[in-house]
Amino acid sequence: MKTAITPTRAENFSEWYQNLIAAADLAENAPVRGCMTIKPYGWAIWELMRDEMDRRIKAQGVLNANFPLLIPIDFFNKEAEHVAGFAKEAAVVTHYRLKMIDGVLQPDPEAKLTDPYIIRPTSETIIGEAMSRWVQSYRDLPMKLNQWVNVMRWEMRPRMFLRTSEFNWQEGHNAFATHEEANADARKMHAVYADFMQDVLAIPVIRGEKTPEERFAGADHTYTVEQIMQDGKALQAGTAHDLGQHFAKSFGIQYLGTDGQLHHAWTTSWGVSTRMMGGLFMTHADDDGLILPPAVAPYQVVIIPISRDEGAAELNAFAEKLADDLRAANVRVLADTSDMRAPDKMWKWIKRGVPLRVEIGAREMADGMVTVTRRDLGKASKQTIDVAQFVAAVPDMLRQIQQDMYAAAAARNRDMIVEVTDLDALESELASGRVAFFRLKYDQTLNERFDALMETYKISRRCLDDADPAYVFVAKSY
Amino acid sequence: MKTAITPTRAENFSEWYQNLIAAADLAENAPVRGCMTIKPYGWAIWELMRDEMDRRIKAQGVLNANFPLLIPIDFFNKEAEHVAGFAKEAAVVTHYRLKMIDGVLQPDPEAKLTDPYIIRPTSETIIGEAMSRWVQSYRDLPMKLNQWVNVMRWEMRPRMFLRTSEFNWQEGHNAFATHEEANADARKMHAVYADFMQDVLAIPVIRGEKTPEERFAGADHTYTVEQIMQDGKALQAGTAHDLGQHFAKSFGIQYLGTDGQLHHAWTTSWGVSTRMMGGLFMTHADDDGLILPPAVAPYQVVIIPISRDEGAAELNAFAEKLADDLRAANVRVLADTSDMRAPDKMWKWIKRGVPLRVEIGAREMADGMVTVTRRDLGKASKQTIDVAQFVAAVPDMLRQIQQDMYAAAAARNRDMIVEVTDLDALESELASGRVAFFRLKYDQTLNERFDALMETYKISRRCLDDADPAYVFVAKSY
Repeated sequence: MKTAITPTRAENFSEWYQNLIAAADLAENAPVRGCMTIKPYGWAIWELMRDEMDRRIKAQGVLNANFPLLIPIDFFNKEAEHVAGFAKEAAVVTHYRLKMIDGVLQPDPEAKLTDPYIIRPTSETIIGEAMSRWVQSYRDLPMKLNQWVNVMRWEMRPRMFLRTSEFNWQEGHNAFATHEEANADARKMHAVYADFMQDVLAIPVIRGEKTPEERFAGADHTYTVEQIMQDGKALQAGTAHDLGQHFAKSFGIQYLGTDGQLHHAWTTSWGVSTRMMGGLFMTHADDDGLILPPAVAPYQVVIIPISRDEGAAELNAFAEKLADDLRAANVRVLADTSDMRAPDKMWKWIKRGVPLRVEIGAREMADGMVTVTRRDLGKASKQTIDVAQFVAAVPDMLRQIQQDMYAAAAARNRDMIVEVTDLDALESELASGRVAFFRLKYDQTLNERFDALMETYKISRRCLDDADPAYVFVAKSY
Repeated sequence: MKTAITPTRAENFSEWYQNLIAAADLAENAPVRGCMTIKPYGWAIWELMRDEMDRRIKAQGVLNANFPLLIPIDFFNKEAEHVAGFAKEAAVVTHYRLKMIDGVLQPDPEAKLTDPYIIRPTSETIIGEAMSRWVQSYRDLPMKLNQWVNVMRWEMRPRMFLRTSEFNWQEGHNAFATHEEANADARKMHAVYADFMQDVLAIPVIRGEKTPEERFAGADHTYTVEQIMQDGKALQAGTAHDLGQHFAKSFGIQYLGTDGQLHHAWTTSWGVSTRMMGGLFMTHADDDGLILPPAVAPYQVVIIPISRDEGAAELNAFAEKLADDLRAANVRVLADTSDMRAPDKMWKWIKRGVPLRVEIGAREMADGMVTVTRRDLGKASKQTIDVAQFVAAVPDMLRQIQQDMYAAAAARNRDMIVEVTDLDALESELASGRVAFFRLKYDQTLNERFDALMETYKISRRCLDDADPAYVFVAKSY
């Protein structure tokens, strides 16, 4: 059977992913090394994700703010582990002027910065410095700040949405009077992320703490939300860090306690990025293109008039009227009355993953009927129903799609989690080519044999199992 | 009379402005040259402005997207006027790694970019390159794109919100098949900006075309929205450019017309930034602090319980209940039940410009009354009214404040516009120390004497008068 995306997932998952992104018009490689341009359809999905996440973050009492793009190297240098983690991928600003010299536009040697800046790879340092001034007394705590910004980590093996030199994210930075509160906050934001992915993105997740080997540069505890892609690989989709007093001590974030003494604060940081979009696509899409959960679909319904020249205007008007009725019910809808051929329109919106597709021909219009197909179920779901009945049913149909998509991904995930009793079992699975989330005792991974397996099979520890932290999940990852 | 902000506007407008920003907790200078940190209260105002502007932009059929932060110098170099306009303030990225050398963390000489990048000062070039691929046929036009991003123009004389090296803005970039459409689009976006400032920010504006001397680098026509600050100086608050075919030719944005021939497209660009916030503050604030129009006030109403120890809990509960009732009517409200002293709370929210302040004491609570004061009118507006009546009246009160603030600014502006018949009259006004918008015949400014006046009195042509483009407005500016 011919598919809209070639190669198929089974043939070559990685190429399928690239072609999916092009076919759904989501993004393209930018003429800047490792960077991408997010096209309008991709950005519309991000706006829906971002706005819903923003509501959930604000519901935690977090306030948005905006800190500078550039970070003085000197600041960055204050936390040793942080430097070790990010210095290798820092974009450095060294000049503040261009000049035409010998016909070539280049950095003006006379405008060289004495102290260069880096473009933020993350903002613990510059926000830490601000908090050292903003936090004075226990009354200022907790202080909960977030920003939605672009960051840059120079990327040698870029991959759209998953790993790009520049990416968009939110980074939250909270400060507390006690370690208990800070740790509870990191766990809370971890839960906010997991719930968002499950409720909004219809993606079942594996959540747990990172092992010490995999922690964020400068954290005491890193809590991660991992997703299982259709090819069995892991995607780290969001992390929350309990930073202990590392940054508070490096930057002097101190408060006067009720005891009249100065104490260092305890801080957390937590972020999700456009990377989640890659997870969304690789979880739900099929060989015909994207499949979007209704909660983040720019159009939840597309209406396609199947017109044959004469009567087209009337059919288009009928389609527009139906769209208006759905809009009145808060449904995001498009009546595609463009002058493309109907089959081309159909495939365009299949590839873009619109949850519900409505086709209307002249005869259906006359009968007051519409033909409706669910993107997630395809032809099997096709039904012709009364238009008024359809309008009334749409909100429920969308809710059902959202649920079914989650259930389908969850069912697939169950086959992707494999218990292994020891390294022999693990090696045998890996040698057989199995790609999955392998669950085994964490202490079995603390030896050179496991290190060698990681190297050979490109696997890594994803996280400890929240249900029993003596166990760890091991997988290949994006 | 003691004022909350010292010095007062009359004493030293510029220092008053700096202190206003600190007193209202809007922003602070960042530890990065020329940059600022926008604090939560300032950012909340920006989010309200941004979200409303975004709705108005989308209503014009514009789609949001996201283009890279970095621009290859080579791209930037393709449009000569553009280079001349921005090369002198470009932040240049030359390395992609830091390395510790002799104990100093610095750009790694082995990670020097062969082709450096600049941080976008604006994105005509990189979007032009994309459009050259995205636009193929007349069917692809008009193409209307916008992005909300940070940009950077190295600033030697920074001033918070008005002129910072990094700033946040939206930049729209549209392409059309004909010059007529492109020009109409630039004018339309110009009108969208002016309407936004008048309707949402309650700021009356002067709008018109920039003279050739003041156009954007690479534009055929620049349409500007100018605001008159309380000190009589001009603030350029938004511009829309008819770029003719400059960028279409530099980047090869061509479409196959209905005539079967290739044609260059016609493009526009248009932007407003966080600079508008400076205009908002300098238009409406007074010597006691900010005065916010209800449309962009993070809290439209603040409720202050005036408690005397015992009974505080009951009074706080009453305040919270009132806040809930107002929230149910879609009013943004805060019940300030923090443990600050009541007068301190009152001054805090006066300085932050909350439109309506509600005070409730134990006696008022017993009587079911509240005392209400409008921030824009102050004590004169103070009234004690029935709480249910107040809840019902709030939406109308907020609308009235919005209108009255606009009317007050418009009345002040009328005195700030001064007709001058010739350069003698202009010079005499300037010599007397008058700061205002001077209106005179444009052709009277095309000579060396006017150039000398510009130099001496730091004035510039703000824009032609839309009502009669033979006239130009001349003023000092921010």
